Amino acid sequence: MKFGGTSVANIERIKAVAQRVKREVDAGNEVAVVVSAMSGVTNQLVDWCKELAPLHDAREYDVVVASGEQVTCGLMAIALQELGVDARSWLGWQVPIKTDDAHGKARILDIPREDLDRRFAKGQVAVFAGFQGVGSDNRVTTLGRGGSDTSAVAVAAAIGADRCDIFTDVDGVYTTDPRIVAKARKLDKITYEEMLEMASLGAKVLQIRSVEMAMKHRVRLQVLSSFEDKPGTMVVDEEEIMEKELVSGIAYSRDEAKITLTRVADKPGVAAGIFGPLADANVNVDMIVQNISEDGKTTDMTFTVSKGDFARAKQVLEGSRSVLDFQDLISDSNVVKVSVIGVGMRSHAGIAQRMFKALAEKGINIQVISTSEIKISVLVAEEYTELAVRALHTAYGLDSE
Amino acid sequence: MKFGGTSVANIERIKAVAQRVKREVDAGNEVAVVVSAMSGVTNQLVDWCKELAPLHDAREYDVVVASGEQVTCGLMAIALQELGVDARSWLGWQVPIKTDDAHGKARILDIPREDLDRRFAKGQVAVFAGFQGVGSDNRVTTLGRGGSDTSAVAVAAAIGADRCDIFTDVDGVYTTDPRIVAKARKLDKITYEEMLEMASLGAKVLQIRSVEMAMKHRVRLQVLSSFEDKPGTMVVDEEEIMEKELVSGIAYSRDEAKITLTRVADKPGVAAGIFGPLADANVNVDMIVQNISEDGKTTDMTFTVSKGDFARAKQVLEGSRSVLDFQDLISDSNVVKVSVIGVGMRSHAGIAQRMFKALAEKGINIQVISTSEIKISVLVAEEYTELAVRALHTAYGLDSE
Repeated sequence: MKFGGTSVANIERIKAVAQRVKREVDAGNEVAVVVSAMSGVTNQLVDWCKELAPLHDAREYDVVVASGEQVTCGLMAIALQELGVDARSWLGWQVPIKTDDAHGKARILDIPREDLDRRFAKGQVAVFAGFQGVGSDNRVTTLGRGGSDTSAVAVAAAIGADRCDIFTDVDGVYTTDPRIVAKARKLDKITYEEMLEMASLGAKVLQIRSVEMAMKHRVRLQVLSSFEDKPGTMVVDEEEIMEKELVSGIAYSRDEAKITLTRVADKPGVAAGIFGPLADANVNVDMIVQNISEDGKTTDMTFTVSKGDFARAKQVLEGSRSVLDFQDLISDSNVVKVSVIGVGMRSHAGIAQRMFKALAEKGINIQVISTSEIKISVLVAEEYTELAVRALHTAYGLDSE
Repeated sequence: MKFGGTSVANIERIKAVAQRVKREVDAGNEVAVVVSAMSGVTNQLVDWCKELAPLHDAREYDVVVASGEQVTCGLMAIALQELGVDARSWLGWQVPIKTDDAHGKARILDIPREDLDRRFAKGQVAVFAGFQGVGSDNRVTTLGRGGSDTSAVAVAAAIGADRCDIFTDVDGVYTTDPRIVAKARKLDKITYEEMLEMASLGAKVLQIRSVEMAMKHRVRLQVLSSFEDKPGTMVVDEEEIMEKELVSGIAYSRDEAKITLTRVADKPGVAAGIFGPLADANVNVDMIVQNISEDGKTTDMTFTVSKGDFARAKQVLEGSRSVLDFQDLISDSNVVKVSVIGVGMRSHAGIAQRMFKALAEKGINIQVISTSEIKISVLVAEEYTELAVRALHTAYGLDSE
């Protein structure tokens, strides 16, 4: 049972969470709990580090920010004991949750289970500080923002849990953003692959890495509300889902910016010439489209980057202009990426066509298209965001009645 | 160099402390730093534990409250690095600062110095999280409120430091409370024994245990201001002080309450009969006076307890009334204990007499007297506190010019 920052935001909520854990214990389950820092705490700690030094030692940053989860895991153990539940807190170095030494974004390598198993057998609830581990040199590491989700999945995998429940401030995964589409439906089940695409495309329910890890170790994940007592969305293996929907959800991301280089030479190595310098500058390129050459000599190259990388990307490209030999650099950050996602599209034709038709009927021009096995993404002008999402939600039969 | 909560209360002060540490490093010194939690933080953490459960697991309490020092030691390392000083943070379990398992008030058993020495030799500043250690079962322990002073002395003793500087919000140890006596003087030097008495008698400059430890390991302590750059008060061995004052200071404590049991049987075992049940109830008894029996059969027994124990002490005694067989229980919490302290009084007669005379001249009635080798304490009505302290400060020639 993993509880995020809003679920443990104050003493009253910590008490409520303890009650929820007690119910699982009373039902005869062996329970491990993973907690985040109280909401707002991690931001404060990160700010202090930045205030002292914009470029600070990641090892010391980890010491500072890991303290937030330390507080909540101790408090949660006290809250459980107060309810008569045998419980104890586990800090990363105590378990130990062994990670690599990539401070600030460490990866979990191993969680020994012997000691934990012995305590579960006695009925003791283990309360883990999420987000933290210990590196090879005995120093505190953290897993990156949202890392408590990954802690939870890693613990669930290590102890062979039947289920990993991620309690959060939403009650599940929806077919799309309910703030845009009133008829959005909560999904009962979704596959790991779909959840990964959803997470990558802007649905902030779960940290991407936690879904990857769940998929790798076949941990059955449930996303559910910590404030309401009802089932959430199960993230499971494809085989667990009997009736596969063609499309499970519509995602969108406003964090996109488009760059087009016109009349670059149409010859081998030109793509490497463009994207090499961008990679060196740590710019992540997403959608890439190269048009067929008209004159046989030059072509236009269009691609997208995140808005945060937009300025840097343009600077890098302008700096390489003499080498790249393009005519113009055209850029536009008023764009949105809209995606339809579903494992069902693997075995069905015509899914993409339905998307293009639905958008065309609303007069929405598609600027860039990119596809993967289980998703189709298009780039359109940002002003069409809501219209496009709603049209697609209806077109794929996702609207609730 | 130990910095208390007010010295690291915010980012600006942490930066200022880092500058101060850098000056010592630049002067060619090998420096270890011990930090408290930012002021207010520990109180907040303690409150949360109490809010969840008045009687909480001390092991989990330790996990929660130790986080405050974790934050500041990481931040301090970052601040030092930003000034170009090689530094790293050390949490209790990393050093390790080994303690016994008395959670919430643990005692330091051992601090291995090999690893630290190797780093000092390379010029690296070690920044320790004060107040915390690790118990035999690999769990976090804390040393009790004010425990960072003890951490600092323990580290100084372990590494064989030439000096242990305790930076705080006062600039040294005074002959008495400057808020009461405007002519109070800052002492250049004071002996461990005197400092111990001062600390026990209500001067809150240093945690008592830290002074005991400094005395035991002959660590030269300096109490000085973290806000002004000038020498403070050195707490040292008696042999280091050439000209011993008869009296070094006047202390007072308002945290006193007086209880008298009248007409208790004057026979062997009666004191044990009274103080045994009080000890069992964890009531600390301070001054004890038994008058000579008038009738040869009964006597009056007077003693003091702290105000916090007052109600419990009365309850325990009333509960034992049938056994103790006293006539009346007379109690009074409007009292203050005033003490004169000085190692010089060991070898000089007439010190006590000067005290009694000074108080008599002001018309102050002495209720109880208690003496030790280097201190005389009297209990007087609380309303005379300031008058008594000022009179004694003058009588022993402590007033500054």
